[in-house]
Amino acid sequence: MKNALYAQSGGVTAVINASACGVIETARQYPSQIQKIYAGRNGILGILAEDLIDTSFESAEDIHALMHTPGGAFGSCRYKLKGIEEHLSQYERLIEVFSAHDIGYFFYNGGGDSQDTTHKIAQMAEKLNYPLTCIGIPKTIDNDLPFTDNCPGFGSVAKYVAVSIQEAGLDVASMASSSTKVFILEVMGRHAGWIAAAAGLACINAGDPPHIILFPEIAFNAALFCKQVQETVEKFGFCVVVASEGIKNENGQFLSESGAKDAFGHAQLGGVAPLLAKIVKDNLHLKYHWAVSDYLQRAARHIASGVDVEQAYALGKSAVELALQGKNAIMPIIVREKEMPYQWGIGEVALNAVANQEKKMPKTFISEDGFSITKACHDYLLPLIQGEAYPPYHNGLPNYVQLKNKSLAKKLKPFA
Amino acid sequence: MKNALYAQSGGVTAVINASACGVIETARQYPSQIQKIYAGRNGILGILAEDLIDTSFESAEDIHALMHTPGGAFGSCRYKLKGIEEHLSQYERLIEVFSAHDIGYFFYNGGGDSQDTTHKIAQMAEKLNYPLTCIGIPKTIDNDLPFTDNCPGFGSVAKYVAVSIQEAGLDVASMASSSTKVFILEVMGRHAGWIAAAAGLACINAGDPPHIILFPEIAFNAALFCKQVQETVEKFGFCVVVASEGIKNENGQFLSESGAKDAFGHAQLGGVAPLLAKIVKDNLHLKYHWAVSDYLQRAARHIASGVDVEQAYALGKSAVELALQGKNAIMPIIVREKEMPYQWGIGEVALNAVANQEKKMPKTFISEDGFSITKACHDYLLPLIQGEAYPPYHNGLPNYVQLKNKSLAKKLKPFA
Repeated sequence: MKNALYAQSGGVTAVINASACGVIETARQYPSQIQKIYAGRNGILGILAEDLIDTSFESAEDIHALMHTPGGAFGSCRYKLKGIEEHLSQYERLIEVFSAHDIGYFFYNGGGDSQDTTHKIAQMAEKLNYPLTCIGIPKTIDNDLPFTDNCPGFGSVAKYVAVSIQEAGLDVASMASSSTKVFILEVMGRHAGWIAAAAGLACINAGDPPHIILFPEIAFNAALFCKQVQETVEKFGFCVVVASEGIKNENGQFLSESGAKDAFGHAQLGGVAPLLAKIVKDNLHLKYHWAVSDYLQRAARHIASGVDVEQAYALGKSAVELALQGKNAIMPIIVREKEMPYQWGIGEVALNAVANQEKKMPKTFISEDGFSITKACHDYLLPLIQGEAYPPYHNGLPNYVQLKNKSLAKKLKPFA
Repeated sequence: MKNALYAQSGGVTAVINASACGVIETARQYPSQIQKIYAGRNGILGILAEDLIDTSFESAEDIHALMHTPGGAFGSCRYKLKGIEEHLSQYERLIEVFSAHDIGYFFYNGGGDSQDTTHKIAQMAEKLNYPLTCIGIPKTIDNDLPFTDNCPGFGSVAKYVAVSIQEAGLDVASMASSSTKVFILEVMGRHAGWIAAAAGLACINAGDPPHIILFPEIAFNAALFCKQVQETVEKFGFCVVVASEGIKNENGQFLSESGAKDAFGHAQLGGVAPLLAKIVKDNLHLKYHWAVSDYLQRAARHIASGVDVEQAYALGKSAVELALQGKNAIMPIIVREKEMPYQWGIGEVALNAVANQEKKMPKTFISEDGFSITKACHDYLLPLIQGEAYPPYHNGLPNYVQLKNKSLAKKLKPFA
C-alpha cells in the first residue's frame, strides 16, 4: 500500500485549498488503497528538502475548513524545475524522497509551469522504473491554462473584481458632480486580460462602469485612452477604468517598465494605475483616484464564487479518483457542457499536451475599439461568478483554519 | 403640513443609504405630519440649484433596497458652506428653496463640516423666522466625529480592512519562503488612524498579520520602520504592513507629499504604499508587494458590518422621530451602553457642540512602540465589525438599487 503526496505550486488563490480539501477528503475514503496523505511544505521546495507534512494529524473538521480558507494551507512556492537534463539531480532527488516515503501518488496543484513539472516527474519515474501515478490539478487566477474551460481561482477573482467595480462605480457616480471624475482600478493579469475582462460583468445596463478596460492584448495608446476618458466624462459625468497590470505600449514594453513616468523602475511593483492617473492628470486635468488590489483580489475568499469553490473541490476529488482508476500523467479539467443554463463536468487531458501553453483571450472577446468586452466574452464569464460561498464567521471575521502541519520525520540526508 | 428634505454630504460610505432608508421609511409612517420627502440631488449643491428629487416616486421595495446599496443614492458633494456672513447669499438661497417647497424638516447626512452647515442653516432659519427643524445624521468612514461612540460607515470599512488583511496575510504567509516577504496595504484616514487601527482586529493569535500598523498620529521614522520590518521577517518569515494614507514624517509633512520619492507630487494621489515599498526595497532588499484599496474600502457593501448597517438605519429613523418630537439643531448619536456583550443605544447632541471638532485616536489605543493597537483599542473596535449583512445577489452580483430620482419642478429663478 502506498502513500499519496500533494503539493501546491505558484501563486495561491482563494480556492486552491478547496482542491486540497477535495484531494484529502477523497483519498481518506480509500484507506485500502491510499495509506497516508502527505503534503509538501512550501510546495516542491519542501519535497526537495524532504520537508513533508503528515496530514493524518488534521481532523476531518479542519480538513473540511480548507473549503473556505484562502491562501495555501501547506505553503506554496515560486520555483520552476527546468528540463530533466539540466536539473537531473533534482528529479532524482524527488524520486528518492518519493521512494523513502513510499509515495505512490503525486498530486501537483498549479498552473502551466507546474504541470510541466508534473509531466517531467512522471517521465523521470518511468525512466527510473519507480511506480508513481502523477496527476496535475489545475489552478491559476490568470485563467490561462489550455484545454480546461476555465481555471479554479479565476472565477473568484472575477467575482471580486466585478463586485468591486460595481461598488466603487456607485461611489464615484454619486460624488462626480463635485469630486472625482476618473477612477482607475489596477488588476492582475500580466499576459492575458481575463481578470480585467471580468470587470466588464459589472456593466449590466449601458453606461454602467467600467467604461474603459485596458487589456494586455491591446497596445496602450495614451492619446486614444485620453480621448475615450474625455468622451466618457462628457457623456456620463465620470469614468471608471480597469487596467490590467500587464498593459504594454506600442513597442511591446510593459507600461509599468516604460521608464520616465515610473519612479521605481521595477516590474514587480505593479503601479500601472498611478501611471494612468498621471496621464489623466497631465492631459485632461480631471480629478482622479486610483486603487491597486494586488493580493487582496486573489485572497478574497469572503466573496469567492460558489461555482469556483465547487469546481476546485471537484478537480481535487477527480484527481484522486483518476489516480485510483490507474490513470497517469493527466490533469482533470473543467468542461463546459452547456452555457444557458450553465452546466459543467470534469474531463481530462494528457499532461504533455498542457505543459507550457498559454490560453490568451480570443480576439472575439474584446470589442472593436479595444476598450470593452463583447457579448461572447460576457456569456463565457458570467457562469463563472455564480453563487456566493461565504465562509463561516466568528466574532466578525471569517473563521479561516490554520492546520497543524506536523512534519514527517526525515529519512534522507539533506539535499545539497 | 410640511415636506421633509434629506441630503447626503461628503464622501459616501457603504451604509449612508441605510440612513437614507431609515429617514424615508420612518417619514413615510407619519403622513399626517410629513407630506413629501424630497432629496437634494448631489447634496447641498442640488438644494442651492433647486435641483430636488421627489422620493415619492420610489416604491417601498426600492427604498428598502437602499439598506444594502453602497454609494450615495441621491448624489453627494464635497462643498463646505463657510460662515453665514461670508456666504450669506447662499444661506438665504437655501431658505428661499426651503420656503418655495414648503420644507419644514431638513435632514443632513454627513461628517463634521456638514453638521457645521446644518447648525448654521438652523441659525439662519431662526434669524429669518422661517420655521425649520434641522437634524444632523452622522456619517463618516473616518470615525472622527465627537460625542458619538462611532460613526456609521466606519464599522464597514473596519470590517473590510480587517478581512482583507486576514486574507492577504494568509496569501503572503503561504508564499513567503520563496516569494514576497513584505506586503503593504494603504488604507484611508488622512488625519486619524481609526481605519488603519481596524486592521489590527485581524491579529487573533500572536504573530498574525498585521505586524506593523502606521498611524498618522505617530511620526514616521524610516529607520525604525525598516528595523521593525527586518525583525518581523526574521521572526515570522514575512511582514504585513498597514499604512494610513495620512502618515507624516517627523516634520509633520504628509509622506505622500514629501517630495523626492514621490513621482507625482500631488496630495490626492495617495501612494504611500509604493513609497514604503521603495523604502523596503532600497534598505532591506526584500521582495514586496503593495495594494491601495482607495474607494473599494468605503464602497464595499458586500462585506459591510451588520452592526454598522443597523446603526446607520437607526440614526436615520431617530432623526425623523426626534424632529417629530420637536427637537431642533441636534444630531442623534450612537451611545455604547455596554462593551461585553456589546449593547448600543441612540443619544443626541446639540449641533453647536459637534461642529468642526475632530475625534483623534486616544493615546491609550496605540501601543508604546507605535506599531500596533492596544487591548483597549481592540475592545473598542471589535463590536463595530460584528455581523454580516450581505446584500441580495442576482446573477452572481449584488442586486444594488438604482432609484428613479425624478426631479421636482423648479419654482425659482436660477441661483447666480
